[in-house]
Amino acid sequence: MDRTELLQKYSHVPVLDHGHVKLVDLMGDDERIEQVARLSYQRGTRKKNETRGLLRYLLKHRHTSPFEQVAVTLDMKLPIFVARQLVRHRTQKLNEMSGRYSVLPEEFYLPPLEQICLQNPTNKQGRSEPLPYDDAVIIRERMKRHCEEGFLIYRELLDRGVARETARIHLPLNTYTQWCTTWDGHNLLHMLELRMDEHAQWEIRQYAHAIALIVQEWLPITWEAFQDYRVGAITLSRQERNYVRLKGPYWGSDLSDREQAELMKKFGFEGMKIPPLG
Amino acid sequence: MDRTELLQKYSHVPVLDHGHVKLVDLMGDDERIEQVARLSYQRGTRKKNETRGLLRYLLKHRHTSPFEQVAVTLDMKLPIFVARQLVRHRTQKLNEMSGRYSVLPEEFYLPPLEQICLQNPTNKQGRSEPLPYDDAVIIRERMKRHCEEGFLIYRELLDRGVARETARIHLPLNTYTQWCTTWDGHNLLHMLELRMDEHAQWEIRQYAHAIALIVQEWLPITWEAFQDYRVGAITLSRQERNYVRLKGPYWGSDLSDREQAELMKKFGFEGMKIPPLG
Amino acid sequence: MDRTELLQKYSHVPVLDHGHVKLVDLMGDDERIEQVARLSYQRGTRKKNETRGLLRYLLKHRHTSPFEQVAVTLDMKLPIFVARQLVRHRTQKLNEMSGRYSVLPEEFYLPPLEQICLQNPTNKQGRSEPLPYDDAVIIRERMKRHCEEGFLIYRELLDRGVARETARIHLPLNTYTQWCTTWDGHNLLHMLELRMDEHAQWEIRQYAHAIALIVQEWLPITWEAFQDYRVGAITLSRQERNYVRLKGPYWGSDLSDREQAELMKKFGFEGMKIPPLG
Amino acid sequence: MDRTELLQKYSHVPVLDHGHVKLVDLMGDDERIEQVARLSYQRGTRKKNETRGLLRYLLKHRHTSPFEQVAVTLDMKLPIFVARQLVRHRTQKLNEMSGRYSVLPEEFYLPPLEQICLQNPTNKQGRSEPLPYDDAVIIRERMKRHCEEGFLIYRELLDRGVARETARIHLPLNTYTQWCTTWDGHNLLHMLELRMDEHAQWEIRQYAHAIALIVQEWLPITWEAFQDYRVGAITLSRQERNYVRLKGPYWGSDLSDREQAELMKKFGFEGMKIPPLG
Repeated sequence: MDRTELLQKYSHVPVLDHGHVKLVDLMGDDERIEQVARLSYQRGTRKKNETRGLLRYLLKHRHTSPFEQVAVTLDMKLPIFVARQLVRHRTQKLNEMSGRYSVLPEEFYLPPLEQICLQNPTNKQGRSEPLPYDDAVIIRERMKRHCEEGFLIYRELLDRGVARETARIHLPLNTYTQWCTTWDGHNLLHMLELRMDEHAQWEIRQYAHAIALIVQEWLPITWEAFQDYRVGAITLSRQERNYVRLKGPYWGSDLSDREQAELMKKFGFEGMKIPPLG
Repeated sequence: MDRTELLQKYSHVPVLDHGHVKLVDLMGDDERIEQVARLSYQRGTRKKNETRGLLRYLLKHRHTSPFEQVAVTLDMKLPIFVARQLVRHRTQKLNEMSGRYSVLPEEFYLPPLEQICLQNPTNKQGRSEPLPYDDAVIIRERMKRHCEEGFLIYRELLDRGVARETARIHLPLNTYTQWCTTWDGHNLLHMLELRMDEHAQWEIRQYAHAIALIVQEWLPITWEAFQDYRVGAITLSRQERNYVRLKGPYWGSDLSDREQAELMKKFGFEGMKIPPLG
Repeated sequence: MDRTELLQKYSHVPVLDHGHVKLVDLMGDDERIEQVARLSYQRGTRKKNETRGLLRYLLKHRHTSPFEQVAVTLDMKLPIFVARQLVRHRTQKLNEMSGRYSVLPEEFYLPPLEQICLQNPTNKQGRSEPLPYDDAVIIRERMKRHCEEGFLIYRELLDRGVARETARIHLPLNTYTQWCTTWDGHNLLHMLELRMDEHAQWEIRQYAHAIALIVQEWLPITWEAFQDYRVGAITLSRQERNYVRLKGPYWGSDLSDREQAELMKKFGFEGMKIPPLG
Repeated sequence: MDRTELLQKYSHVPVLDHGHVKLVDLMGDDERIEQVARLSYQRGTRKKNETRGLLRYLLKHRHTSPFEQVAVTLDMKLPIFVARQLVRHRTQKLNEMSGRYSVLPEEFYLPPLEQICLQNPTNKQGRSEPLPYDDAVIIRERMKRHCEEGFLIYRELLDRGVARETARIHLPLNTYTQWCTTWDGHNLLHMLELRMDEHAQWEIRQYAHAIALIVQEWLPITWEAFQDYRVGAITLSRQERNYVRLKGPYWGSDLSDREQAELMKKFGFEGMKIPPLG
């Protein structure tokens, strides 16, 4: 899919009850990443079907800088409590609407009933089972009325002439804000890895998934490598390595010769191929 | 004042109604900045009284990197709407308490009555005159009750077992948060220049002023230069330069010979000293 | 000029004896910067002829973040001693060819004869008058032969099988390297301001000028504002302000009413217009 | 070992033939990292022997920001070709001596004879076996004479009055430079992981090892966790996971219950402990 089609297709992705991700612009693609890497290593132009091999090699071995040479600009509308999590990624270029300049529209996020859940007893920062339906309905209604009351006071204060920068300070953290943000490919993938994770708050994951939709069509080869070498990978500590061993058989292995050699090396068998029987 | 005395003196600076700035640690001082600059320029060790001259030269000519080699760590407690402004400074190292992990204490900011002001009609992001006393009392009370109600609902939701990460989303933007932040000297001065400015919101200025108290005792020579060449300086555009001229007399000028030459050069009189009469 | 034409026109700008700047890609333009700023301030869409006013306002008041939302990717070939200066700008995304992976081509920079100059006696980091023609010829020849000898040894070492990463360590600092770099608009302008300055080394200025050619056609309104409020502006310290005064007459001033008010304010005359006579 | 003792002990670590790493200053320690993390998670003060548990948890789960709150300042003398690799780590604060301001001392790096090696045929960026002794002697002498000749020309040009910024451009990449650099703990560990790796050039590894000496005494608990969860860890891609299985027996495992549960989860056995037999 080319740049124009992507801009068209993702011109408005709805997220949560009033939010969105809008694709504003793109620069570069999988081929650009390859081209930049070939300049770095002066490897010259290769055959087309070697693009995939090179991108996978780069991502696997954490040669991250070529992925910084592509960029995406997004227009996002999101609750402030989600924005407060996303803003911690410092390498993005960010312009947010200002509640000092502008009157904030009365838009706030309310969780869907099935996302009003109990505190997770083991994971201190997470949720577990949904509350009973009737409880969830009551809670959601209670939140809704409180937020509406907040915006009522806000408008009242503005009517009395109170400065916008003061009139908004009691508004709730689920008020929607909007921003424009530009990311390079490497830092975007790193953010997605953290924010698509099951430990991330459900609401921010919805934004990560919306952005992921765009990235997997924009950078399909990179995205596949990202799934294989980052999202789907596991890391074993020095201690954990002792409790794991290579197994077989390996006939018809989907690992290339180089990957087989690298895997063997991870388990201390340098210079060998994966044996035919475990 | 040495490091230990500074850490003692600024161990707790109260800001706003429930906030604070606490000095946690310092690294380096004016002499360190000088030492780093001398390494860069291999100028060798000079006489003690030349420290001031070198630091002023560096700051005037925007040789900013030596000021990056000193650092300060602060513990800050601040309303979330102030935190949202400060977090935009991306070069700080930041760890904020998490409302997903922890129950937020019932502490929210209410403006002092004289800071409940009218919207500034010309400066779209600012405030102007205070509201009449009686109006301010009513508004403040209205805000207070709404925020108390918000925390009441928060506790109720926690009592029902709702996950902390969800129970807090309707809390107001003036809820206090807390963080630990480390700044280098250059980026700290840049932040202070922007946030002590009269265009910054009054509440963030209170934090900037509290930090400024520390910096002016920690880096006294740098601070003086910062006042002279940054805070107290004016910039004239290419067009504005046409509406300004050098004036005299200059007997007893407090500009050094080099500074006189530089000033002349700014007005196109290269190689001359300021004339004795304008 | 549209994006495709710009990419075509600046597909190869020669710099120095063997270097170049090649425009690889662009994202955004003056209108994008305006659009982002309007989102920040929720000012809505204005008439086309207000683009210039807004961009000038942003640049004058150092609202730098909207300029970060546009990007340019360049392929540069440059001497290593120039690369060592440029690499200090940390916000660029950079991929350089590697002398560990690749055999370096025998290309080194020799200054043109008129740039072989005497040490500047007052500016410790600069040059002054050119050397006599005959001396310059001798010096250049001496450098040339030494560099050729360096590459001769390099090839000899490679022939003996010495590792590339070792064989290159005696090569000269004027050896050409190549890299791909992506800049956002704000940081690019900041770099250009420093590197087009007369205090920058002549060789790096040639690269800054080549890039400036591109920027002034890519972002013409921004570029004009950059000239007026940054390159062509002067800054007066708190002390220097005492030696300057406003002058007149101002009939037909090319300053707008707001700019007149701002200039007056800089000299302590708040709320006034420039008087008709100085 | 406390701060003063560390500053004393590492006041000068020699590296390569003329280089060094000098410890200039430190801010924070393992306890600071813990204290910052506890503020983030509002976990309150725990018993002393839980410091290790928390730091290991943070490092294992890539909660990197608390490690950014400690800092170290180093004075380094290093060959330019090594500096060119290190400068790519953009989060450090760096001040390098300038060959435009200062006359460069005649100091250049020559590899020890056993490090004059053959090109590695499989690893395109690495070296393999040492050259025969006699060849290495000849090569080293050839390099030495060429570098001496370069400095001879340099001094001659300076004597003729040529500007320093021009006279130095033919000097070799193994010329020593010096800089002052400040790192936060997280980015320092990341750099060390990359630069202590066997794929890094031997010369930069010597600097990484010298810095590692300091870090392991400055942050001993962090360092141990870094060895276990980063340096000594292996990452298995989605594909590689299929060729590995858990093994037993696990009596007397040195994994904690939580670590056992996490390991099981990595292999799809959620909620189980490692079985007593594989």
